[in-house]
Amino acid sequence: MSLATGQRSLGDPDVRYPLWPPLTGGCPRTSTAETDYPVEVDYDYDRVPPGLFGPATRTGLDRWAPLLPPLPAPGLGEGGTPLIELEPGVFVKDESRNPTWSHKDRLNRCTVSAAAGVGAPGIVVASSGNHGLSASAFAARAGLRSVIVTGPTAPAFLQTYGAVVVPVPWEARRPVMRRIVERFGLHPVSSLTATHTGHPFGPEGYKTVSYEIHAEIGTPAAVFVPTGYAELLFGVAKGFAELRRLGVTDRVPRMFACEPAAAAPLTRALRYGLPAATVDVGPTEAYSIISQVSGYRGVVAVRESGGAALALDDARLRAAHAELARAGIWAELSSAAGLAGLRSVQPVDGPVVCIATSSGLKNWTAGGLETVSPQWPHVERLLTDAGLVPGDGS
Amino acid sequence: MSLATGQRSLGDPDVRYPLWPPLTGGCPRTSTAETDYPVEVDYDYDRVPPGLFGPATRTGLDRWAPLLPPLPAPGLGEGGTPLIELEPGVFVKDESRNPTWSHKDRLNRCTVSAAAGVGAPGIVVASSGNHGLSASAFAARAGLRSVIVTGPTAPAFLQTYGAVVVPVPWEARRPVMRRIVERFGLHPVSSLTATHTGHPFGPEGYKTVSYEIHAEIGTPAAVFVPTGYAELLFGVAKGFAELRRLGVTDRVPRMFACEPAAAAPLTRALRYGLPAATVDVGPTEAYSIISQVSGYRGVVAVRESGGAALALDDARLRAAHAELARAGIWAELSSAAGLAGLRSVQPVDGPVVCIATSSGLKNWTAGGLETVSPQWPHVERLLTDAGLVPGDGS
Repeated sequence: MSLATGQRSLGDPDVRYPLWPPLTGGCPRTSTAETDYPVEVDYDYDRVPPGLFGPATRTGLDRWAPLLPPLPAPGLGEGGTPLIELEPGVFVKDESRNPTWSHKDRLNRCTVSAAAGVGAPGIVVASSGNHGLSASAFAARAGLRSVIVTGPTAPAFLQTYGAVVVPVPWEARRPVMRRIVERFGLHPVSSLTATHTGHPFGPEGYKTVSYEIHAEIGTPAAVFVPTGYAELLFGVAKGFAELRRLGVTDRVPRMFACEPAAAAPLTRALRYGLPAATVDVGPTEAYSIISQVSGYRGVVAVRESGGAALALDDARLRAAHAELARAGIWAELSSAAGLAGLRSVQPVDGPVVCIATSSGLKNWTAGGLETVSPQWPHVERLLTDAGLVPGDGS
Repeated sequence: MSLATGQRSLGDPDVRYPLWPPLTGGCPRTSTAETDYPVEVDYDYDRVPPGLFGPATRTGLDRWAPLLPPLPAPGLGEGGTPLIELEPGVFVKDESRNPTWSHKDRLNRCTVSAAAGVGAPGIVVASSGNHGLSASAFAARAGLRSVIVTGPTAPAFLQTYGAVVVPVPWEARRPVMRRIVERFGLHPVSSLTATHTGHPFGPEGYKTVSYEIHAEIGTPAAVFVPTGYAELLFGVAKGFAELRRLGVTDRVPRMFACEPAAAAPLTRALRYGLPAATVDVGPTEAYSIISQVSGYRGVVAVRESGGAALALDDARLRAAHAELARAGIWAELSSAAGLAGLRSVQPVDGPVVCIATSSGLKNWTAGGLETVSPQWPHVERLLTDAGLVPGDGS
């Protein structure tokens, strides 16, 4: 049973709203012409069951139902992903192990539940890939329609779960999405505002990443998070802050926002003390986390945890991507930003967690290999060239 | 700690061998010119800890270490996949939630551990996709080399984890693999023999599917398994047989082997009472489970459980694939064979499990969508054509 009590403005914590309807356009009272402020979900923390963080009887997100918004939309076994030890004290949280193979499933269990909760006929989402795929899976599971408004290079797999896919020029995505919301009554599960606010229920799903990490290794010294709009960053930070508030732990990890250097709006916002910033976008292959504009959530997460934002160029992302592959983890390039961030800073004293958000299969560009001659000398040459050592043939 | 005691022939259970080295060429004493018989791992079942099937303290394959071969190769958080209720009493075991997004990870934790156990410098595998990707991930994690001998249409992603990929004409795969084993001392983790025997440690990993199912819903009435060489089928059957032997359950599920009709060697072997059969291969899109030849393991699994083999045409596979997508589960086409099998038989009395073996991302052929005009009348038309209903614009 959810203990959610209402929504609270990040722009001013004294500004409060009922839990329903979810404020999908940000906080109407504190947002200004320059900055949209998100709202977040508040809970009756005094009533959290004492055993919630002890041995589990349920798995996935449902295990943490008291500290999540109501979840009327059925799950797909999201959450409960493994923590893989890369080297002593360095852990990778492999979020590719979710129902649609990215962390977005934690968010969309919550946002599609919001759509079900308000009785919407379906959801609409603006997405280049992971978010749209995930939202449409949960919508399908809940018997709701879905529309994905996407950019011109959208992968065809966005149609997998029956979504209506609308690929439009990039800059038209948000206006088209807004108009679909107004005209068709679909519930928006991505941001409607210029500076990012997102769905108020979304980051709540990400809190479960922190609960799971804590259940396995306690509170780490730092968490490195691939960061686009900073919804994941904020959710993970909030999860640990709740654990501290509830007395389950006595400290929170430093939160490191790992942005592509090609566009690092949160890095800029923090540098200039802004609630959000807009930047130029340069070329990068990390398309899942490239963003021209940040949102206030990222500022809150970094500031309140004593963390930092890190701007990482593609060479660093590729190096981290290769390091993960050598350890048996195939991440999307954007997903390697967490490890790239860790490798870009001074060694951290204490265990650290790098979040790998999505599967490398997501940005695999299909292509085959040229067939080689099966004649033995040719095959042997291939293997010895690769450094394999022939024996005595015995 | 493993309770494995040795290897036993499936051709004659009285024929036994030590646990090491793993007999990767089948049973040398019972195999004939026509039929290669596999060996399997035996255990000291009397010493199984009483609490093994109770509440868990460990996760994934390591939880079941007493009933697995020794696992010196480190894990990647394989196993522990969710069971998703599709409709009352019908469950899908979503094996796409493994480290390389297929069931093969359970097998390869065990086979790569065998390679580490014998001190091999690496592994070699003949594979069209899932098996090779998985084996090379576990080899990388263990610091071992890997070579994937594959066919002419191999996806380039087989190189992800640093494997040397050798794409040769299809019929040359096994001879080339055998020669690599002899010359380079690599440990083979796929079958070296004509009728399939596979690696003796491999199906042991698949037993954990059964342990997990039982821990969640008890013993189902039937399990429907996508079947190529029947290693998964055999492993799942053995897992339930062990649970019965240990008194944890009093019955075993009927095992249904779900083969593509384009080549259904196990169906043929069972019909004619053969230990293995060879068939012609017709066209099918279910390339992950297409096989010209069966192995004796499939016969054992079906016969001892009172099950059956089902030959399913591509239309049935596509229908099951679409049904899964409507429920939020995107499986490889081959992976939909389990549900296709269930839909092809009379209703089963009692809960049933369909195993979905791999992610739909695996046979996604890249391709984009044509960008559409963002002019509102055009977008609105797209949505209304798809059955969405505009409101009053309020």
